[in-house]
Amino acid sequence: MHGRKMPATLRFMLASRRSELLGLEDLARTCELVTRISQLVHALQKERGYSNIYLSGNAPHQRQQLDVLSLEAEALEREVRLDLDRIDLDAVSSADKTRLFTRIAYALHSLDELPALRRRIREHAISMQDATATLVRLIGGLLSVVFEAADTAADPDITRCLVALFNFMQGKELAGQERALGVVGFASGYFRADMLERLEHLLEGQERCFATFSRFASPAAQALWQALCASETNINACRLRDIARRTSPGAAVEPQLCELWFELHTHRIDAMKQVETRLEQDLLQQCRYSIERIRKDLQSHRKLLDGIADMHAAAEQAKLFSVQASDLDAPPPDGMTAMVARSTLELLLTQSVRLQGLNEELREARQALDERKQVERAKQQLMRQQGFSEGEAYSWLRQAAMNQGLRLEEVAQRLLALAQPAERAPARTLGHRSRH
Amino acid sequence: MHGRKMPATLRFMLASRRSELLGLEDLARTCELVTRISQLVHALQKERGYSNIYLSGNAPHQRQQLDVLSLEAEALEREVRLDLDRIDLDAVSSADKTRLFTRIAYALHSLDELPALRRRIREHAISMQDATATLVRLIGGLLSVVFEAADTAADPDITRCLVALFNFMQGKELAGQERALGVVGFASGYFRADMLERLEHLLEGQERCFATFSRFASPAAQALWQALCASETNINACRLRDIARRTSPGAAVEPQLCELWFELHTHRIDAMKQVETRLEQDLLQQCRYSIERIRKDLQSHRKLLDGIADMHAAAEQAKLFSVQASDLDAPPPDGMTAMVARSTLELLLTQSVRLQGLNEELREARQALDERKQVERAKQQLMRQQGFSEGEAYSWLRQAAMNQGLRLEEVAQRLLALAQPAERAPARTLGHRSRH
Repeated sequence: MHGRKMPATLRFMLASRRSELLGLEDLARTCELVTRISQLVHALQKERGYSNIYLSGNAPHQRQQLDVLSLEAEALEREVRLDLDRIDLDAVSSADKTRLFTRIAYALHSLDELPALRRRIREHAISMQDATATLVRLIGGLLSVVFEAADTAADPDITRCLVALFNFMQGKELAGQERALGVVGFASGYFRADMLERLEHLLEGQERCFATFSRFASPAAQALWQALCASETNINACRLRDIARRTSPGAAVEPQLCELWFELHTHRIDAMKQVETRLEQDLLQQCRYSIERIRKDLQSHRKLLDGIADMHAAAEQAKLFSVQASDLDAPPPDGMTAMVARSTLELLLTQSVRLQGLNEELREARQALDERKQVERAKQQLMRQQGFSEGEAYSWLRQAAMNQGLRLEEVAQRLLALAQPAERAPARTLGHRSRH
Repeated sequence: MHGRKMPATLRFMLASRRSELLGLEDLARTCELVTRISQLVHALQKERGYSNIYLSGNAPHQRQQLDVLSLEAEALEREVRLDLDRIDLDAVSSADKTRLFTRIAYALHSLDELPALRRRIREHAISMQDATATLVRLIGGLLSVVFEAADTAADPDITRCLVALFNFMQGKELAGQERALGVVGFASGYFRADMLERLEHLLEGQERCFATFSRFASPAAQALWQALCASETNINACRLRDIARRTSPGAAVEPQLCELWFELHTHRIDAMKQVETRLEQDLLQQCRYSIERIRKDLQSHRKLLDGIADMHAAAEQAKLFSVQASDLDAPPPDGMTAMVARSTLELLLTQSVRLQGLNEELREARQALDERKQVERAKQQLMRQQGFSEGEAYSWLRQAAMNQGLRLEEVAQRLLALAQPAERAPARTLGHRSRH
């Protein structure tokens, strides 16, 4: 730009592209954090499952193995914390971090509880159910960071990767909860009715998550997933699940099945981790692609704008030599000015159409997340209005979906639409509201 | 904070609130820009109407009056440009400006065309229709900046104000187009069939915009609007509109009605400007309220967090005096640590619930904008697939809405849903796409 001032139109065009690039670079850092969180979640899932084994028996080798798992999780937690320390919180200058940071704070707060929880587990001062519940909540907090990252990403390709990864992580977490539940069930020799209901609930949840994952994952990740589904491990895990379904107070099985269940499902979940690793690689690769693309774009954009600015300057120069009373009486634009205007307009239209396209793609990818939220909201509404338990609310939705031949998400959407008042509330008087 | 380091949880909580405040302060600046744009749009609307009068006749006093209007618009344009110059484009550090800046660049580019357009009008080197079309496009570009501001605002109260203002501005712009159309019609003594169709189209558009405005405006603004609707000016403007409807090649009226029409509708639009001014005041007041609220909030939040950090430091200090092998064997948390954890969690939950509420409110307010986009998309789909003109597409939608007893927006939504493939497209292979 040789130090002279660019016309305002061009400056804003350039700033728009730069804003896009900066946002993308920032998103790439969030994605790296997401992959570290995924490692930590995996370790915590394993620790959760083994904690139940430890709580059910009390052999010395179990304590040793549990300590190994805890130390692994601790090491990964330190990496996540280091990553978070690297974020320059003072440099944040816009509203788009509000939600993500609150989710991170919540996840960190839950992580702070870990040492005390581990102690209570080792002292057998907590039940399997309570230990599981605490770790489910903790992992849920970490997953919600991933959800938020997916929900606020501004690049559709990266959003698709994040939606695939989030849904896979969520499905894997439900598989982890299934593992923990199975340990509790087999340890006591049989599954109570409420545990069996919970088991079905966890299976359906997995199905839903993996279906969404499949819609958004790369072919490579999908192929890995298909292979896993057809694997010996998965088939054996399914068989043991069938055994679990047939247990009852009158038909108990050997508590030793507990360790077999844990082993098989750990194999299954470890295989899932491979798919997850593929998804993480896809995500980071997509970040690199997107950044590279937009950097090149910005570069050629800058060159074009420089060229236009040069033409503009030449045209302005020419004007100086013809004295004019006012712009109203200025001569008709010469060829150069017209060319400047045309080139600028062309670039502007290309960019506008591109942004419009991006927005539609984003909307589509985020819809998968919205649907998720809607099912949750519909469930909560049923629990509130009908006094249903969470399981009952979910069964109700599922039954309604089957009866009406709709997807679960569609039933949820209709239910929520019904509850909305026909007319929206009138505007509130300004400033007379409090939200805190 | 006395220079010591806050625990990570608290730092992220604070950063989240600060991000919210910074975003709000930035939004307030955008809102000020929006109010200046609204002034400029008003002046350009008047200039557009009078340009048609000038182009239809050629009396000297018309040229003088037109020059006055042009100079007024020029002065307001300079203010908008000054406002834009004040934006520090280099300080932008996130993706959320990408769309707004592109819209601004487009608006600026259109404004660059103004001097040439004004010259051609004065030289009678452009038809009324073409002059109107150019100014409609230019004002449309300015309005799209307001739309984008409304669509990206992160505070629901401010979003509601912006949705009300945008819809009012859009309705007023259609009223301005009606004024310009009427000048063309009366100047030639009668309205052709296509002009009458356009007139009805403009009236329906106004109705729709003002209905949305009413849903989101403050009671004060609504009262002003009701008064305007019942005013003598409005009733007389309606009467003249009825006269326009009865004209035809065989039933022409005096071309002098042209100036009366312009005068009456200018009164009507000037009265609208008063409502708009009220909406602008509401908007800026809401910005001040929201910022004040969040500043106070941040302050008390900071104090609370400082208190928690102090407790935390004291608890850490206490730990130092009891030598521990590892966290796994650390003593159970004492009363102070537990209190720290509880206070932190309480704050976190409050903030999470608050953000969730904000998000739902935002979703609701933005829906009014989404619906607008959907009607546009549905129209374009009909034009593309059925070969309809814009007017035909709109009539089709309106008829379908009447037949089915639905709102226009609902018909649009269903039409678009029908066109979507039952299964979404499979994920594309990474990196093999180009979008430019």
